[in-house]
Amino acid sequence: METPYAAVDVDVLDRNIRKMEAGAGERGLALRPHAKTHKTIEVGRRQIEAGAVGLTVATVREAEIFADGGIEDLFIAYPIWPSPERARRLRALAERVALRVGVDSVESAEALARAVGPLDVLVEIDSGHHRSGVQPADAKVLAGAATKAGHRVRGIFTFPGHGYGPELRKQAALDEARAMAVADADAEVRSGGSTPTAALEDAGPLTEIRPGVYVFNDAQQVELGTCGFEDVALTVAATVVSRTGNRAIVDAGSKILGADRLAWATGFGRLPDVPEARIVALSEHHATIEFPDAVPARGDVLRVAPNHVCTTVNLVDRLVVVREGGQVDEWVVAARGANT
Amino acid sequence: METPYAAVDVDVLDRNIRKMEAGAGERGLALRPHAKTHKTIEVGRRQIEAGAVGLTVATVREAEIFADGGIEDLFIAYPIWPSPERARRLRALAERVALRVGVDSVESAEALARAVGPLDVLVEIDSGHHRSGVQPADAKVLAGAATKAGHRVRGIFTFPGHGYGPELRKQAALDEARAMAVADADAEVRSGGSTPTAALEDAGPLTEIRPGVYVFNDAQQVELGTCGFEDVALTVAATVVSRTGNRAIVDAGSKILGADRLAWATGFGRLPDVPEARIVALSEHHATIEFPDAVPARGDVLRVAPNHVCTTVNLVDRLVVVREGGQVDEWVVAARGANT
Repeated sequence: METPYAAVDVDVLDRNIRKMEAGAGERGLALRPHAKTHKTIEVGRRQIEAGAVGLTVATVREAEIFADGGIEDLFIAYPIWPSPERARRLRALAERVALRVGVDSVESAEALARAVGPLDVLVEIDSGHHRSGVQPADAKVLAGAATKAGHRVRGIFTFPGHGYGPELRKQAALDEARAMAVADADAEVRSGGSTPTAALEDAGPLTEIRPGVYVFNDAQQVELGTCGFEDVALTVAATVVSRTGNRAIVDAGSKILGADRLAWATGFGRLPDVPEARIVALSEHHATIEFPDAVPARGDVLRVAPNHVCTTVNLVDRLVVVREGGQVDEWVVAARGANT
Repeated sequence: METPYAAVDVDVLDRNIRKMEAGAGERGLALRPHAKTHKTIEVGRRQIEAGAVGLTVATVREAEIFADGGIEDLFIAYPIWPSPERARRLRALAERVALRVGVDSVESAEALARAVGPLDVLVEIDSGHHRSGVQPADAKVLAGAATKAGHRVRGIFTFPGHGYGPELRKQAALDEARAMAVADADAEVRSGGSTPTAALEDAGPLTEIRPGVYVFNDAQQVELGTCGFEDVALTVAATVVSRTGNRAIVDAGSKILGADRLAWATGFGRLPDVPEARIVALSEHHATIEFPDAVPARGDVLRVAPNHVCTTVNLVDRLVVVREGGQVDEWVVAARGANT
């Protein structure tokens, strides 16, 4: 294999899948993993085989691709606005899989009903991330309007994305629980959870969680304390092409690692095999890595854990599947670029 | 077209190409645009037809794709380390196009000579960006070693990437000029220039410039003062899917805009049609935009200029080509993901 490429250790992947499924089971929660992280049919199937009730996706196109791949229960956790073409596609999807979609306004609930017809919907709640979603106290009004528009309201959902920071995930999980309780503690489905908050013990009033990143993990999760380096299933293999002083340059840049870097990150990714190294700069095809001790030689191949694995996966056409260091398979990233 | 998609205004594109070519011509400089920005055969051909001496690329795979597209003169401005497979590909490339590659160490010059054979090489100089490249004073030693290894040393090159900051580009251009003069003021090829520094008047000792971004421009270039919004040829069309208070959420996130954000940027991109709006947050499929006045309605389609257009192009399979607001063509991003 020529570098840079993304490699998935299938034993670590399977362990991550089993662990999250077991954790959800112990707490009596349904697991509906977010497939935006892996975008890969083979990984989605492994999640379902391990016990997931279905998959979560971000776009209609992702839903279509996973439906083509045999996944029969899909939740589009996004406030879709139906253009005529998107409405046609949603209708076709609803006829072939068990489909749920998010709504976060009376206007979008009515627009979906007009353009697509009755759907199974979940009302999106803002639990503190302040992106989309209604305030918890407004959930029942929106649920009523969605029902009136003809939809079957199956419950409520939220994304506690404000848990992506050190020491923030416990508070985010508390905010999520409070928001869901205020919104509708008796809803049939009360869906929440990100990888950081899903790792916490108290699920509060949730019935379902939708973590995505846990399947591969990444440098952000390690630095958040959600997992260790041994739980990182996906890494990018990169060759040292240049070096000077205590620095080496490898051939993996933002065009494969992604440019994501939250304010608290130590750099643009981490090296699981050299935890004390720091990726201090990132260009499109160069990562500049500082080493406290020995600097690798030109031609050495290093493993880099990206900061945000969802971005890396969306940049590659294929995942190289490895076991004990050797390639055993190759998976197509079927939903790469599936933004519509 | 369903949103989000990347649209290129072909009239603005052609004007950008003509303007850079004219500016280079006035200063007696050869123009060798960096094709990593557009990754698209049709754009590369337009640059050559307008007078470019050849194209610059970042990877062997990009070179192969542009060679397949009929571009006959290519410079891989990267310190390639030759694995056996990459060496084989480089040899094949050198047989069918006029090829130059970068070297930044005696070790890599010798490795290339052993694995590939004699090549036309340019010695990479560090002019202040501190990524790859030798110090200017070491250039002649490296050139001598590369010649001894069997290569034809055609000259020197640098990337003044430290000019990507407000008020920094003039100093970066001065650093570049000084570095090139120290390295080898008499080299046949003295190649430099990024879009910010290429826009300055004094090219110093350069004979060639390699700007990339100018062809499309982006929010970073606008905020650097290199161009105006009217010069931004590529924008992402995005639909408003949610709104609250003075904020709207559109369906273009980091999976199409890219997550690039330099410290001085005002946000995660700009709206050329609403310059006072600010993109205050970005998720994978959501951009959160604050509007000082009227907030657009759900369903409205907005144009977003990404921060760093090279990243956006690398995330899409096709560019929708528009003229006066209507689609006139569609171009395949042939070198998307061409990282090896």
